[in-house]
Amino acid sequence: MQIVLANNYGFCFGVKRAINLAEANPNSLTLGPLIHNYKEINRLSKNYYVNVSDDINSLDFNKPVIIRTHGIPKDDLKLLQDKNANIIDATCPFVTKPQLICEDMSKNGYQIIIFGDKEHPEVKGVISYCVNTPIVILSVEELYDKNLSNKIALVSQTTRKISEYKKIVSYLIEKAKELRVFNTICNATFENQESAKKLSQEVDIMLIIGGKNSSNTKQLLTICKENCADSYLIEDEYDLDSNWLIGKNRCGITAGASTPDWIIDNVIKKLQTLKG
Amino acid sequence: MQIVLANNYGFCFGVKRAINLAEANPNSLTLGPLIHNYKEINRLSKNYYVNVSDDINSLDFNKPVIIRTHGIPKDDLKLLQDKNANIIDATCPFVTKPQLICEDMSKNGYQIIIFGDKEHPEVKGVISYCVNTPIVILSVEELYDKNLSNKIALVSQTTRKISEYKKIVSYLIEKAKELRVFNTICNATFENQESAKKLSQEVDIMLIIGGKNSSNTKQLLTICKENCADSYLIEDEYDLDSNWLIGKNRCGITAGASTPDWIIDNVIKKLQTLKG
Repeated sequence: MQIVLANNYGFCFGVKRAINLAEANPNSLTLGPLIHNYKEINRLSKNYYVNVSDDINSLDFNKPVIIRTHGIPKDDLKLLQDKNANIIDATCPFVTKPQLICEDMSKNGYQIIIFGDKEHPEVKGVISYCVNTPIVILSVEELYDKNLSNKIALVSQTTRKISEYKKIVSYLIEKAKELRVFNTICNATFENQESAKKLSQEVDIMLIIGGKNSSNTKQLLTICKENCADSYLIEDEYDLDSNWLIGKNRCGITAGASTPDWIIDNVIKKLQTLKG
Repeated sequence: MQIVLANNYGFCFGVKRAINLAEANPNSLTLGPLIHNYKEINRLSKNYYVNVSDDINSLDFNKPVIIRTHGIPKDDLKLLQDKNANIIDATCPFVTKPQLICEDMSKNGYQIIIFGDKEHPEVKGVISYCVNTPIVILSVEELYDKNLSNKIALVSQTTRKISEYKKIVSYLIEKAKELRVFNTICNATFENQESAKKLSQEVDIMLIIGGKNSSNTKQLLTICKENCADSYLIEDEYDLDSNWLIGKNRCGITAGASTPDWIIDNVIKKLQTLKG
């Protein structure tokens, strides 16, 4: 049986970078869990003594502090700096960018509009870089009752859909004399979905590796099932059932955005045993 | 019979300003006809000795030179300046703006895209202010084979439709990391059409004053006829027919974008005689 990996799957660039930084800085603390995968958090704790701390005010400042991919509010960063903390900044560069844009644009007199969820840590961080209070919206309709300026700068949370972003832009063109649109959307999630869709059309069994409660992973399962009836969601190699493989020639593999490569490797190794 | 004027009709702000400048500078020359209405050109020539010159190289530089609402290319302006011409700049401020934007943005490394007709005098003027060759398009499709930059600034010819502009913006969001959209569209034409549409629903006869070959005026006639069967296109008061007014209570009036107020005034005076 042939095993085929999707062109894009699993961790995005920013998460891979954060894990590398954690491994390169053993015995450090992360402000909140580094990613939403407890097996990976446990591995970092066990192998690298990298542990999670949820409260910035009771941190052990003798240890390096890792900032998560989502970034943190500017005031929190200042607090760490004031305490002379050894800061390991794992903020995804795709998140640092809207932070810097909002700081620069708001200082230059642009009204800032952020397309995103104001309760999400990434957006909270971005908001904190605006020198004036920005408008934060999840849909174009939320703009209807807002007082808008002639000069607007627009950024998006990295995981938002471009189709919705376009609706917001279309509305704002008529309201502002100048609209600066920054495309801060990261396509990693959508690339994973597109690759899973394509691969599921070319195989006779499809394995989706990821948390059973992860909405991201469940979305991948739904997409794959549309093309390949024999699509299965597994958390790791122990969920594999050899009966699934009987009479199959090509097995496709994809993984959710919070699934580490080592779990995927374990699945592949187990698959090779089963087919042998 | 009641006479009702449309809320918006006739000359736009920029054309009114140009006529005022011509009247304030008798015995001057205009580079090309000031507006596309020969009666008005004749009036300015007869009453103010303002005459048309079509060739910049054979101008009489002893006379003030009026630049038309469309503006002129930067090199032509430089030629006038080098000749120490007395320049009366009647370029519409709504046209000066995209000129300045293109100069500034192209100097700052943005790729310039102009939505407009590259053969139109206004667009030729705007193009000349770009320090690099801009992309000039009349539809989003023309962008498909273009090499696009990561930093794009977009302007529009003043008379283009906003709906088409939005399509171009939507396409470019995905191509550029930063897109600066300048809304340089002037709504005067569309406001005239909207006002004519509204008024034609409230009257029992509608007069559209303007050139019989003017596409702009003919568009107004078409719009009015949809709501008021008794809609008539007239060039001036001599085209009025008293039979049209029999049994009518409310007469609506609108005018094309190149129809001067004095022609409209003449029509109103004649109407008042007829109904008397």
